[in-house]
Amino acid sequence: MTFNKPSLPRGTRDFGPTQMVKRNYILSTIKHIFEKFGYLPLETPSMENLSVLMGKYGDEGDQLLFKILNSGDYLKNVAGADLEAGSVSMLRKVSEKGLRYDLTVPFARYVAMHRQDLVFPFKRYQIQPVWRADRPQKGRYREFFQCDADVVGTNSLICEAEIILMLSEIFQNLGIENYTIKINHRQVLSALAALAGGEGKENDFYVAIDKLEKIGQDKVIEELISKGYNSSKLKDVFKLLISSEKNTVLDNLEAAFKDSSQGNKGLADLKETLSILNQFGNPISNLAIDPGLARGLSYYTGIIFEVTLDDRSMGSLSGGGRYDNLTGVFGVPDIPGTGISLGVDRIYDVMEARGLFPDSSGETSQVLLTSFDSESQRYCLPQISKLRDSGVNAEIYPDIVKMKKQLSYADKKGIPFVIIVGSDEMETGKLTLKDLKSGGQMELTIDEIIDHIKSNTQ
Amino acid sequence: MTFNKPSLPRGTRDFGPTQMVKRNYILSTIKHIFEKFGYLPLETPSMENLSVLMGKYGDEGDQLLFKILNSGDYLKNVAGADLEAGSVSMLRKVSEKGLRYDLTVPFARYVAMHRQDLVFPFKRYQIQPVWRADRPQKGRYREFFQCDADVVGTNSLICEAEIILMLSEIFQNLGIENYTIKINHRQVLSALAALAGGEGKENDFYVAIDKLEKIGQDKVIEELISKGYNSSKLKDVFKLLISSEKNTVLDNLEAAFKDSSQGNKGLADLKETLSILNQFGNPISNLAIDPGLARGLSYYTGIIFEVTLDDRSMGSLSGGGRYDNLTGVFGVPDIPGTGISLGVDRIYDVMEARGLFPDSSGETSQVLLTSFDSESQRYCLPQISKLRDSGVNAEIYPDIVKMKKQLSYADKKGIPFVIIVGSDEMETGKLTLKDLKSGGQMELTIDEIIDHIKSNTQ
Repeated sequence: MTFNKPSLPRGTRDFGPTQMVKRNYILSTIKHIFEKFGYLPLETPSMENLSVLMGKYGDEGDQLLFKILNSGDYLKNVAGADLEAGSVSMLRKVSEKGLRYDLTVPFARYVAMHRQDLVFPFKRYQIQPVWRADRPQKGRYREFFQCDADVVGTNSLICEAEIILMLSEIFQNLGIENYTIKINHRQVLSALAALAGGEGKENDFYVAIDKLEKIGQDKVIEELISKGYNSSKLKDVFKLLISSEKNTVLDNLEAAFKDSSQGNKGLADLKETLSILNQFGNPISNLAIDPGLARGLSYYTGIIFEVTLDDRSMGSLSGGGRYDNLTGVFGVPDIPGTGISLGVDRIYDVMEARGLFPDSSGETSQVLLTSFDSESQRYCLPQISKLRDSGVNAEIYPDIVKMKKQLSYADKKGIPFVIIVGSDEMETGKLTLKDLKSGGQMELTIDEIIDHIKSNTQ
Repeated sequence: MTFNKPSLPRGTRDFGPTQMVKRNYILSTIKHIFEKFGYLPLETPSMENLSVLMGKYGDEGDQLLFKILNSGDYLKNVAGADLEAGSVSMLRKVSEKGLRYDLTVPFARYVAMHRQDLVFPFKRYQIQPVWRADRPQKGRYREFFQCDADVVGTNSLICEAEIILMLSEIFQNLGIENYTIKINHRQVLSALAALAGGEGKENDFYVAIDKLEKIGQDKVIEELISKGYNSSKLKDVFKLLISSEKNTVLDNLEAAFKDSSQGNKGLADLKETLSILNQFGNPISNLAIDPGLARGLSYYTGIIFEVTLDDRSMGSLSGGGRYDNLTGVFGVPDIPGTGISLGVDRIYDVMEARGLFPDSSGETSQVLLTSFDSESQRYCLPQISKLRDSGVNAEIYPDIVKMKKQLSYADKKGIPFVIIVGSDEMETGKLTLKDLKSGGQMELTIDEIIDHIKSNTQ
């Protein structure tokens, strides 16, 4: 048997109990809201055939896929010539599976494979890890969770409005403030591209505009000019792009689009979405139409979404949009849809930085039973049964050790209450309940303790 | 862009919404009970360094590990001679990471790495997928979930008693009946091995006895004789082994172990555990001491557990036991513990076969709002806000299609209630609520509908 000093692969993390409890708080909040809107969970395998994954994320994506070595004698079909042909060429002989790179392609694969059995519109959410062989750095991991909700098989803008409602409710329930839900429409962007002399080169426009915040307006304009855009027209278009006056943005775009049916279609969708939202009756105060919002992905065709913190202390917390051809790449056309992805790691970091996690959660034990010897420990056992039967998460320190060590265990584990049982307690039947936060303690019967704990913890 | 007819890798599965809702029902029941007993969640990365994984599961395990091809030019250090040396020898040049094979080795790695920061006794549960390059067959997958709970850093038999309490409560809450929680002690088995002339060859005894049910007593005895066990002594030992008379099993063993300190230590632990259980005050009716229970794994040293269905319609639903050296393989000695693993796939199959899943769960929508035209659809929007604000999971059919199609959507998705809004409803403010199960319908205000749905669904 070999002894290894154990280590983790670069770019991966353990999630210990403290982090898990916090992460579960975020995820259960999100799941609860997705389910309230009729979205149901889906999980796909971690491995997909490389034929499903390759060619979907561009050349860079292909390289960043983690590939799995074929099991058994993976060199079975490999000859010296394959070795000389190099690693890319040899790949198909030694590997036929890869790890999930995102949740969208597996979802598209699932919908394409099951389209006969699915009930459309199909609403699913999916929360699973994805893997990318990126260079690890602060905030960038090789294994991280994505959290997506999509509805496919409908063009109704009610879906867009409900996505905005879900986003708003998620951030409200998590206690995150000072953020903006930005929306825009790809056809608004296309129309703006056309106004800047970029008809037929809309994709260059999306890609450049997406970098606006990162590299600044001058560099974006420079890039667009190099792609053949008209320098003076770009200036007018940028006046529209960076306008964020809520009250005038739609009017300004409407005036600019008087000859653009595409632009008007985009604006009509945006207005219709606002009207639906209004009809839902729950006003969304921090929603903004932002004509400069582009999103990087090429497959969006309609309204796009992004959630950013107003202080810009980190990248977007969520993004998404409407696409008209999710499963086309698998030979199944005409399945439109829309969806969003939430950045769980970033949401975690914001909540940590702003101190938004609740002190205790339903997962942690509410009380620790402690004792001085095996007799008092025995005395604790039926008490702990009563606590648990009443729905209180309770544990007993299993070894006979110094009281100080038992109290320190409760403290470090974040258990708010401790019950101390000694000879006095066994005689009177009144147990000592210690509140670790206030330091105070009381003598109570087990029933009184149950009431006290239940009314003082979640 | 290539068009692929998409497929899944062999031995892997998608979990669609119907399966997910059922699986989540099982997992949330289990988690809830683990947390009630003070166990908290842990998650480790899907990938581990091969140096952590290799050599921990035997030669066969090493072969069944899924290995991940190094990213970038994985052939960088490979020469023609490596190719000739074969796939096993070349492995360390092309792969340094593998996928998690179980939850125990990653847990041991975690404890070894974090032992300075952890609060002992450390209680964790872990529910994550594991991967094995086994030949796929009915009920055997290449990706499947394990669900483990372990407590390390204590020798207290309170932990064993609590594991039995947790198992009992889990199966009770899931509605599974006609099962037995079997326990035994590795030192009882060792003492029996010694009685059969197998001192120093205890591991052969565990391995052979573990197959008792599968290959029968004669073949097991044959195997043990071939390993040097005494044929006539084995007969006496087998009388003890297969005895399952609850009332006499301990007495018979005690009589047989009068000269075996090892056997008596094992019996003392078993009796102490029963006594602790008794003191907890919640009687466990379907617990049995089974001297023929062995469990396959070599690292168990104390009390072992197994849960089997009384009709033997499938393999064990849970198994586990005490070990005295979890992290020794990582150079960190003296961390004893005990734990169990639950077979989520098997529990799912039993519950499906016995019809134990609840009709609806908190995850599915409770009501679908339907409409005839865009005017009535608009009318639905503030109603759906009221439903959701009252905690009712509600969705609206987003497109204007025939009522039949909308009702069929609700039916297929398992949504129990439908609200129908037409011109009459808009006039009177009384909406039609249809109960899809009974077929009945009523005219109610939205507030009455909320009350009705909340009192008629979970």
